[in-house]
Amino acid sequence: MDYDVIILGAGAGGYKAAVHLLKNKKRVLMIEKEKFGGECLNYGCIPSKALIEMSESIYYLKNMPGISMEYKIDMKAWQDWKNSMVARITGNAERQCKSLGADILYGFGTLKDKNTVNVNGKDYTAENIIIDTGSSPARIPGIDNVYYNREILGIDHIPESIAIIGGGYIGVEIGTAMAKLGSDVYIIEAKERILPEVSSELSNAVDKKLRSIGVKIMTSSKVISVSKDKYYTVKTENDEIKSEMVLMSVGRIPNTKNIGLENLKIEMDGRFIKTDEHRRTNVKNIYAIGDVTTGPMLAHKAFYDAYIASENILGNDVIIDYKAMPYVIYTDPEISFTGSVSNNSKKIMTSAVPRALTMNEGDGFFRIYYNDDGTVTGAAIAAPRSSEIITEISLAVESYLNINDLLLTIHPHPTIAEGIHDDFEN
Amino acid sequence: MDYDVIILGAGAGGYKAAVHLLKNKKRVLMIEKEKFGGECLNYGCIPSKALIEMSESIYYLKNMPGISMEYKIDMKAWQDWKNSMVARITGNAERQCKSLGADILYGFGTLKDKNTVNVNGKDYTAENIIIDTGSSPARIPGIDNVYYNREILGIDHIPESIAIIGGGYIGVEIGTAMAKLGSDVYIIEAKERILPEVSSELSNAVDKKLRSIGVKIMTSSKVISVSKDKYYTVKTENDEIKSEMVLMSVGRIPNTKNIGLENLKIEMDGRFIKTDEHRRTNVKNIYAIGDVTTGPMLAHKAFYDAYIASENILGNDVIIDYKAMPYVIYTDPEISFTGSVSNNSKKIMTSAVPRALTMNEGDGFFRIYYNDDGTVTGAAIAAPRSSEIITEISLAVESYLNINDLLLTIHPHPTIAEGIHDDFEN
Repeated sequence: MDYDVIILGAGAGGYKAAVHLLKNKKRVLMIEKEKFGGECLNYGCIPSKALIEMSESIYYLKNMPGISMEYKIDMKAWQDWKNSMVARITGNAERQCKSLGADILYGFGTLKDKNTVNVNGKDYTAENIIIDTGSSPARIPGIDNVYYNREILGIDHIPESIAIIGGGYIGVEIGTAMAKLGSDVYIIEAKERILPEVSSELSNAVDKKLRSIGVKIMTSSKVISVSKDKYYTVKTENDEIKSEMVLMSVGRIPNTKNIGLENLKIEMDGRFIKTDEHRRTNVKNIYAIGDVTTGPMLAHKAFYDAYIASENILGNDVIIDYKAMPYVIYTDPEISFTGSVSNNSKKIMTSAVPRALTMNEGDGFFRIYYNDDGTVTGAAIAAPRSSEIITEISLAVESYLNINDLLLTIHPHPTIAEGIHDDFEN
Repeated sequence: MDYDVIILGAGAGGYKAAVHLLKNKKRVLMIEKEKFGGECLNYGCIPSKALIEMSESIYYLKNMPGISMEYKIDMKAWQDWKNSMVARITGNAERQCKSLGADILYGFGTLKDKNTVNVNGKDYTAENIIIDTGSSPARIPGIDNVYYNREILGIDHIPESIAIIGGGYIGVEIGTAMAKLGSDVYIIEAKERILPEVSSELSNAVDKKLRSIGVKIMTSSKVISVSKDKYYTVKTENDEIKSEMVLMSVGRIPNTKNIGLENLKIEMDGRFIKTDEHRRTNVKNIYAIGDVTTGPMLAHKAFYDAYIASENILGNDVIIDYKAMPYVIYTDPEISFTGSVSNNSKKIMTSAVPRALTMNEGDGFFRIYYNDDGTVTGAAIAAPRSSEIITEISLAVESYLNINDLLLTIHPHPTIAEGIHDDFEN
């Protein structure tokens, strides 16, 4: 065998698996069809956070009493910065893998048999294979020439107006940012509410705030056609929207086609690769991680999968336990969820947290869930920077801590995290 | 007896104690000489965070490639906003106490005997007394007519230049904000480094960043004189600084004078009130909490003291355990510390945390301390928003968790909190 492990796809999960295996002396070949770092680092979570960060600062200053501000955005210059920032992250990751001894090949890899991957016309063999080929945006037949996540994060100017088809986390994150940067934003969602992937209590907090900053949200609304002249025209059953750009964000499809899964008769779960709790497919030496497997399409889920798969390859019988899988959406308010709901909960409003008021924010809430015996089971938080504080709850859930452990731990003042703590008597 | 408990001082600690006692059906009288909410809410942590938040957004946008920005600050309008924001917080707190049944008297209270407090010429009696009279800025004899924390947070314009005498947390927080708002800032510290209250690893991170944004830092430097003409002239042994404003931030003194402590022969520890681990003074029904007692002068320490003292008044034998007392300084980078150091630690640089790079930040580090058996003992973090993530470590310390519990808890991507998690193999 040429290698101990071949990793198909150098995205978030593939990279983390490679580092873990390499540090444990495995010979690793990584095969990547496009860019090291995959969708998340190059076209997803990283550049979107940079755009959102900028939009939040501008919005905050525009709305801060006492500040008058004029600004211009040269998006080409910003894109240059963004690209160099992304290149720094992906470059560091690639250099780390190389310095640990990985071979990295660029090309489209396909599985030939259970130990062989063909890339650029040549065969490579390994004891184990990890599939981490990621996902691509869903496309609606007949609707072409629109923006997807990659294009929208590469724009050379902020559009006057944008229609966003699909009110899931990608659409709503981008919509929030664009609205704060001055665009007229339309969000069209087929289901009855935006962010259907989270609780209605969380999505309502975002819906309310977005409407207050002028976003036009159309729910239970299906797009019939999109046409493009100078402007786009988006027709739904009841409306006709003209906009400068159209973002299509109606979900993502796992990249499981044309990679040879059928050659090995790998069992599928719809378009996803079926895996057991070790992230092993029905072919015992082949693992699948990240967006090609079921579960949330999140980079940290891929990191976790990568850990599970590579531990098993290293001979350690580790299984998946998603007891506290966090879910974060960088909207306004920023919403975060972890663990599971329970019959008991304590709730306080973000407006009762002094640190939020110092930021001129006050929308949202903190809800901590716990069992009858007080064991923390999860939390739903809509508040500035909730992404940074949700891990306190994940740690509590993973460690079977009691609600009193949260209440009696001293939270620094003033912080958003105090919303978790609240009064010690609640 | 008129009341179950008289609380002398309606600051952070007094307020929290009152709420806890009131919710447990105690009759409470609060006596406040100035403003409900005390120094922290009215003149300290809350308004300073609002100023710092504004300065950070302006600095971020000014330094973001692709953004060109012109701005003006009408500090009078900003002060109006700030005052209304503070009034909302203090108003809510006062209303909460009143609605729970507290009596609140404004005036200067003095202890007459172990059950009696005199205020505005009238005596009030109670079974128990809690002293939470707070602290005031230290003043240097012969140096008058300068700004202290109250005045600097009430300014009507951003100064062209400011000399800050004292490089502790107040001086450095304000200095950071003023520098980001365009002032020429001089920080004069008598000790050999700024922020002597934290480790040199932490203070060095701040020192380096502040110098890079143009702050003039003079350490091992004693002020000889301050005179005022049109400008201030600050003379040190080696330098002479001319500046528009001078902030004096050379420490704070507990407010333990003239409140009648000597009438009751209450034992002191220097200028501080001596208490046992129940926060009880040598007079058994009299407690002291917050800045008048030894320990860090922090609102959340006062909250914790308030909990301990009021629990004891309620008949529950609860003692102080400062195992994970967080310490946060809102500088650049924002620095946080909790727990205690240990021989073992893992360190990663903030520049390796992708979320920091999306914010155009990369200064600082994460250091997690743990015992030989892996038990987490504390952390020192210099990174954006470190104040929000330090509680994850406090919770781990309080709950005797292992470093692996942190490493195996899924941290959402991309967040600053990932710096705690790092690679699972470290």
